[in-house]
Amino acid sequence: MAVGEVPNNANEHCVGTQSDQAGTAPSCAGCPNQAACATAPKGPDPDLAAISARMKAIKHKILVLSGKGGVGKSTFAAQLAFALAASGKDVGLLDIDICGPSVPRMLGLEGQEIHSSAAGWSPVFVDERLGVMSIGFLLPDQDDAVIWRGPRKNGLIKQFLKDVDWGELDYLVVDAPPGTSDEHISIAQYLKESQVDGAVIVTTPQEVALLDVRKEINFAKKVGLPVLGVVENMSGLTQPLNNIAFRDASGADVTASVLEAVQAALPNAQVFAETRLFTPAAAGGAEGMAMRMGVPFLGRIPMDPALGQALSQQQMTFIPGE
Amino acid sequence: MAVGEVPNNANEHCVGTQSDQAGTAPSCAGCPNQAACATAPKGPDPDLAAISARMKAIKHKILVLSGKGGVGKSTFAAQLAFALAASGKDVGLLDIDICGPSVPRMLGLEGQEIHSSAAGWSPVFVDERLGVMSIGFLLPDQDDAVIWRGPRKNGLIKQFLKDVDWGELDYLVVDAPPGTSDEHISIAQYLKESQVDGAVIVTTPQEVALLDVRKEINFAKKVGLPVLGVVENMSGLTQPLNNIAFRDASGADVTASVLEAVQAALPNAQVFAETRLFTPAAAGGAEGMAMRMGVPFLGRIPMDPALGQALSQQQMTFIPGE
Repeated sequence: MAVGEVPNNANEHCVGTQSDQAGTAPSCAGCPNQAACATAPKGPDPDLAAISARMKAIKHKILVLSGKGGVGKSTFAAQLAFALAASGKDVGLLDIDICGPSVPRMLGLEGQEIHSSAAGWSPVFVDERLGVMSIGFLLPDQDDAVIWRGPRKNGLIKQFLKDVDWGELDYLVVDAPPGTSDEHISIAQYLKESQVDGAVIVTTPQEVALLDVRKEINFAKKVGLPVLGVVENMSGLTQPLNNIAFRDASGADVTASVLEAVQAALPNAQVFAETRLFTPAAAGGAEGMAMRMGVPFLGRIPMDPALGQALSQQQMTFIPGE
Repeated sequence: MAVGEVPNNANEHCVGTQSDQAGTAPSCAGCPNQAACATAPKGPDPDLAAISARMKAIKHKILVLSGKGGVGKSTFAAQLAFALAASGKDVGLLDIDICGPSVPRMLGLEGQEIHSSAAGWSPVFVDERLGVMSIGFLLPDQDDAVIWRGPRKNGLIKQFLKDVDWGELDYLVVDAPPGTSDEHISIAQYLKESQVDGAVIVTTPQEVALLDVRKEINFAKKVGLPVLGVVENMSGLTQPLNNIAFRDASGADVTASVLEAVQAALPNAQVFAETRLFTPAAAGGAEGMAMRMGVPFLGRIPMDPALGQALSQQQMTFIPGE
């Protein structure tokens, strides 16, 4: 039985809401959902066939997941999409974070609107090789809160998969919200027949983040989603020395003295400071965890203030592909 | 009509699933939910009365929300609970992040179990003034993914409010996951009759975080939840100079030269480096945004590597209360 087809308050031997016997099986007697199940339409969801048809034109599908929020998942997904497009591929970037879509803002696409035609909804194109779809394009005001429970979020994700006219694509990169709930169960279910390449899981180095990543890897295993690998983001912060302010213990600004002293000691060098942001978890951090869980470790990405600035100025551009 | 009582696929003039006419009103004809509504129990949810009774023994209820994940919401909620307990109050900390509970790990309470009695579930006590409840205590293995759709998450949140035997408390601090979906709609609905003091909204300085905070403030306004104020976390990183590694443009380690030069120039000073982690949004960052949205700005919290280390070593302790 697929994940999520047994209601929370179902009887013990529930046959599943999609079963032909739903609502009429002997074990349904007395179940609070019996009436709903008995009257609901049965059999496979006809939308799944429509999704499969749409997905046939897309060679590779990659989900970008994280256990914890704020690890740079959307930034990574956007950069991955940019890099693939820069290397000559046709790429779609689908943002299924319904309550907190950040892709439009990150790509400087705020205020763009979705156009629909007989062929479906047209993505917003960053350039001819990269199309983007997000609920951010559907909101009258970008500050509007999307106060939706699960079923409504699932409905929109289904529409994104079924109705967006991506055309032929080499890659579809899907940016998911943090967690292992409605959005994640739905996208795994809806793409079950569409040969998803797998999931890239983004994390930061500290233990509370790795705890959630282990949950996410277990989620992927349970729903049969291959894990392409783990990426450790914000592994550190490297910046020019003169981006830093220096103070003594009394709080007095000693920046000028420090810079002069370093300049005198290393007259021709451009000095960079490397800061560790998070206390890495014991036993090898994300790399050790990936090894122990039997999934590939793809690499570390330092925090780059220049990228943050580019995002905030909406000037994010192509990074060179390999 | 309360938020969330009209199904996504309901007819246009839906009377709401809790209405006495649900399933029998003229506008229900042909609605896919008609059978379910007609047979479902009507009237106010009897659990709400049980929640109200439990909440009567708690003087103040504070929700800690964020739009975006990874802004340090759980860390803030835990520190707020510690600070209140340290100032002599009886405090409960309730973690309603069902898919990514981090409170048990942060407080060094991993492996603790919930005990139940006739009076309800007993929280896990950090000390006599601070009790904690989280789904983390209910998982057989802390790495298990909680692959639950909304209704099941809502059911557990309801149980946390109804069945946890907090006893008499001065403060209940509720740590919510990021977003504006099931958990948030449910907690607002379940506590509607219980006089919630309001929500503290935690953010980081950059624009993508503020975008989500504006959504969260709009959510609070829509569900009638007072906003106690906005806290800007990770406003910067202050650390001793010798925590930093220095390199020149070729990548060679010049840390020793830099430290010697600074030591020679400022022989008696202990020098601290202040790093900005995020490019603050234009127009005053979180403070400017709070002002424009008419909600209080409560202050800035820098990132403190010592706190990160304490969390990772499970040695977080009381911080002094006011």
